Amino acid sequence: MPQLRVAMAQVDTTVGDLEGNVRAVREWARRAAREGAHLALFPETAVTGYPVEDLALRRSFVDASKRAVGRLAGELADDGLGEMVVVVGYVDRAEHDTRPGGVGRPRGLPQNCAAVLHRGRVVARYAKHHLPNYGVFDEYRIFVPGDDLLVVRVRGVDVAVAICEDLWQDGGPVQTAGDAGAGLLAVLNASPYERNKDDVRLELVGRRAAEAGCPIAYVNAVGGQDELVFDGDSLVVDAERRVLARGPQFGEALVVADLELAAADTSPDWVGEVQRVTISDQPVPAYEPLPAPLHEPLPDVADVHAALVLGLRDYVRKNGFRSVVVAVSGGIDSALVASLACDAIGAQHVVGISLPSGYSSQHSRDDAAELARRCGFEYRQYPIAPMVDAFLATVPLAGVAEENLQARVRGTTLMGLANQEGHLALATSNKSELAVGYSTLYGDSVGGYAPLKDVPKTLVWALSRWRNEQAAARGEQPPIPESTITKPPSAELRPGQTDQDSLPPYEVLDAILEDYVEGDRGRAEMLADGFDAEVVDAVLTLVDRAEWKRRQFAPGPKISYKAFGRDRRLPISSRWREPTVGPALAPPVVASEAAREALA
Amino acid sequence: MPQLRVAMAQVDTTVGDLEGNVRAVREWARRAAREGAHLALFPETAVTGYPVEDLALRRSFVDASKRAVGRLAGELADDGLGEMVVVVGYVDRAEHDTRPGGVGRPRGLPQNCAAVLHRGRVVARYAKHHLPNYGVFDEYRIFVPGDDLLVVRVRGVDVAVAICEDLWQDGGPVQTAGDAGAGLLAVLNASPYERNKDDVRLELVGRRAAEAGCPIAYVNAVGGQDELVFDGDSLVVDAERRVLARGPQFGEALVVADLELAAADTSPDWVGEVQRVTISDQPVPAYEPLPAPLHEPLPDVADVHAALVLGLRDYVRKNGFRSVVVAVSGGIDSALVASLACDAIGAQHVVGISLPSGYSSQHSRDDAAELARRCGFEYRQYPIAPMVDAFLATVPLAGVAEENLQARVRGTTLMGLANQEGHLALATSNKSELAVGYSTLYGDSVGGYAPLKDVPKTLVWALSRWRNEQAAARGEQPPIPESTITKPPSAELRPGQTDQDSLPPYEVLDAILEDYVEGDRGRAEMLADGFDAEVVDAVLTLVDRAEWKRRQFAPGPKISYKAFGRDRRLPISSRWREPTVGPALAPPVVASEAAREALA
Repeated sequence: MPQLRVAMAQVDTTVGDLEGNVRAVREWARRAAREGAHLALFPETAVTGYPVEDLALRRSFVDASKRAVGRLAGELADDGLGEMVVVVGYVDRAEHDTRPGGVGRPRGLPQNCAAVLHRGRVVARYAKHHLPNYGVFDEYRIFVPGDDLLVVRVRGVDVAVAICEDLWQDGGPVQTAGDAGAGLLAVLNASPYERNKDDVRLELVGRRAAEAGCPIAYVNAVGGQDELVFDGDSLVVDAERRVLARGPQFGEALVVADLELAAADTSPDWVGEVQRVTISDQPVPAYEPLPAPLHEPLPDVADVHAALVLGLRDYVRKNGFRSVVVAVSGGIDSALVASLACDAIGAQHVVGISLPSGYSSQHSRDDAAELARRCGFEYRQYPIAPMVDAFLATVPLAGVAEENLQARVRGTTLMGLANQEGHLALATSNKSELAVGYSTLYGDSVGGYAPLKDVPKTLVWALSRWRNEQAAARGEQPPIPESTITKPPSAELRPGQTDQDSLPPYEVLDAILEDYVEGDRGRAEMLADGFDAEVVDAVLTLVDRAEWKRRQFAPGPKISYKAFGRDRRLPISSRWREPTVGPALAPPVVASEAAREALA
Repeated sequence: MPQLRVAMAQVDTTVGDLEGNVRAVREWARRAAREGAHLALFPETAVTGYPVEDLALRRSFVDASKRAVGRLAGELADDGLGEMVVVVGYVDRAEHDTRPGGVGRPRGLPQNCAAVLHRGRVVARYAKHHLPNYGVFDEYRIFVPGDDLLVVRVRGVDVAVAICEDLWQDGGPVQTAGDAGAGLLAVLNASPYERNKDDVRLELVGRRAAEAGCPIAYVNAVGGQDELVFDGDSLVVDAERRVLARGPQFGEALVVADLELAAADTSPDWVGEVQRVTISDQPVPAYEPLPAPLHEPLPDVADVHAALVLGLRDYVRKNGFRSVVVAVSGGIDSALVASLACDAIGAQHVVGISLPSGYSSQHSRDDAAELARRCGFEYRQYPIAPMVDAFLATVPLAGVAEENLQARVRGTTLMGLANQEGHLALATSNKSELAVGYSTLYGDSVGGYAPLKDVPKTLVWALSRWRNEQAAARGEQPPIPESTITKPPSAELRPGQTDQDSLPPYEVLDAILEDYVEGDRGRAEMLADGFDAEVVDAVLTLVDRAEWKRRQFAPGPKISYKAFGRDRRLPISSRWREPTVGPALAPPVVASEAAREALA
């Protein structure tokens, strides 16, 4: 069987930075050539970054992408890499419209494509067949689907090409790759991280390899892009479902694997809509294979932490910031955010500010100062009483409105410093708070990026404990003060207030939210799961009523099956309430208090 | 030819309010029966409201919709309306999946359906074939497409049924309705308002009627739903493109038309995937037809005003508010918002607050007070100097950061009053400001709803003038002070500041924005249109850099071809800049000043 050295470059490209992305592809192609690769694979739309969203609808953008990949082919040849076959994702234009006529088709016929580069030329292209249009994906909106299969003969091996979603859907390119007698299926991906998705992907790649009857080389993007984090974890799995190579997670890497592959059948039975391009029939002379890397995926919690760090680092970098500012209260959410920021960009680029009021406990102030000392970031205090008093002297506010005022004075101070000093302001709200509206719009929710947006409170604790244990295991001081982790959570907006005055215990709340938000389960199903009807009704009412606040919240990294943001699209103006089974319940008592800022 | 009296009920239903919507359908069906209608048509998904967004993915919701339409059928019969045939839109569940297998298909197989109700039963159902997935629409995400055609025989006339997008796409149900020999094509719609779309729709309905070879009865929803406004404007157009009936815009109405229609061919040549249901073969005895209404559509500007008023009124009502609060500065944007609010919900439900600083000119304060006097809303003043001074004594802010501070003190005051008194806070930013980022996040941009979100500044002036002229023509006092309209616009955040210090004239700015935002045109095309390269570069840079601010902005009514919000989905982290033609230009000078709050 012919041998082939395949290099999978899991690179971190930036949306719209065509020049920088092409430079990155050249650099990683050079490394692949140095490693002796015959075939180098890059992620889905590596040239444009992923996802390009509605930029695909602009002709100038599609033209630039097309030109960039042509230029890249020439530059690789100039670099002396022309003999290596490179497959890279980009955006191109369809030659004909594969959709029925009428309005609303993507203008300019953009397609999500793979280009095969060899000896200075684009020798073949493949357009993605299956366009994901669920969850965070909007590809049916912006792309025209492809309808051809591509098989490229490389050193006597028939290599079929597919892109990401093509692998997730039954039939289609995987099936036809098998029918076409491919010796290898190369799949370019930009598959965002989700908890436990690494297991799902591994199982999927193995199953599809068995279906196709040949190994699959699965190369995935890495890096943060707005609400998505790509985790790498590139794979080669053979038709017997053996993992032949596995890349690291959450970092750029070149994953090189020596594969023995079926020789191309020069007279295949299969004929059909397959585009066949022969680059070289001549197999590589036999050589001694090198062992391929077999990285173990990170365990749960560790992987979430790595995703949050990478997402934050890339958001800062890709938006041209050099530093962040966080309001540290002494509570667990802001402590974890500050610690993540130090891990992401270094404590010297982090400013923590304490904004105490008369309701702030001494232990909170002490914990905030201790956090800063342990992490080593710059720390300043600005008591908010003078500003709050100035408002109250002018505008008569009381109760929840006064609580919101305190939060907004803090938000205004935080944003003032961010503007004055050029920091990115980080929001510290977590997913549980966001779900039930337990935050003040334009108050504690301000910021350009929200690292914990998709992290429920119980996971905030788990991440904090995990981070401290990691430090301890390395003989370092744990960054987060123990009392920050153990004390009962409180917004400290009135004397003696704790979150559990207005919300169920977080273990219960998070379990209900997982059913309702991530699982899209209805009330009846949740009661069948054993949840208390009164608690469920109270929580669902809060979640439904807080949609307007979530709509104005900052982006943050998706780590769950369903994050708030583009992943979950619900109306604000909606009277839908989950139907009650049996007699209608009294209005839940916790609603008005817990929704610190009421809709009406 | 058999006669048929067709009633089109353009009703305003609320998303998720199944009980209220069913009640509304019953009420309008009663009116149709009183008018002697044989066939009553209701809009697309009238039972659930439109658009339901991801509620469609929840089984409990789809089940409730299905049950509601069954109950509705029974209740109409109980009301003695069982003989009238009613066609109404709702959400149902597909019997089989019409999509290829794999992940990401809409869970629970929701379909956008029409039910035909007669004598207490659902006698037929039709599922929409074409699912719009462009612009503001996400239907391919949430629905499974239908693949059957439905023809219902009503009093000897074959009535084909289609839903909204089915009409916009070539071929499909319109084509097959013609082939099936239908005497009438009934199309249920929830087609959102856009400037000039009434002309496009009229042309489309005429063209499709000619293709189908029979009249089309086109019933459209009315009312505001988050960022959409449905304008009604229901139509009957025959195969010769004659308008036989036309309903009013922006109001609920029953549009009744007496039609003479081709008798059903009892042995049609056409056989295929058509579901044929016979309700009655017996034609209606001949009767004297009544004249049908032929409303003229509103002229431009008048229709935009009506859309903004309806959108605002429905947002307030559907979200359970009774009043709004607006910060009135004496400038044109807040004046128009306050005037719209008075038109929408009555001046007695509007509170205007003036938040002057040392930079606020006397003429601005006078204009704000005069506006309140003319409109008759409650007016209060809260000078912001004490709060601003309290901040500056604690946090050293200067320049743009100090300007932003003023705006945020105003935002905090506005939201405090909204929370304290239970008002909906209205944001006053217009589309031009939102485009170039000429606003302060959490400052002048705060609010739960933004009436001018999709209204460019030049149109703000046109609307204000139009509203004043209307008042004058009716012998009323024009609501907006003349000096508010004529003075040069200024944010008044520093002495002598005007918008034109940092932005091109609004006529030029709005023309560029129309090309770039609504037209998705690239730089080269815009230069070919005759725009100055330096101005274009400056504006494009501002627009690209302000995406993060727009992402946290409130919803507001779409009135243009492309609104900010779900209509235009772009990445925040993006290095894409329109390629310059010829030598690269120096960085635009206006960028740092105009973006009152810089990203970095």
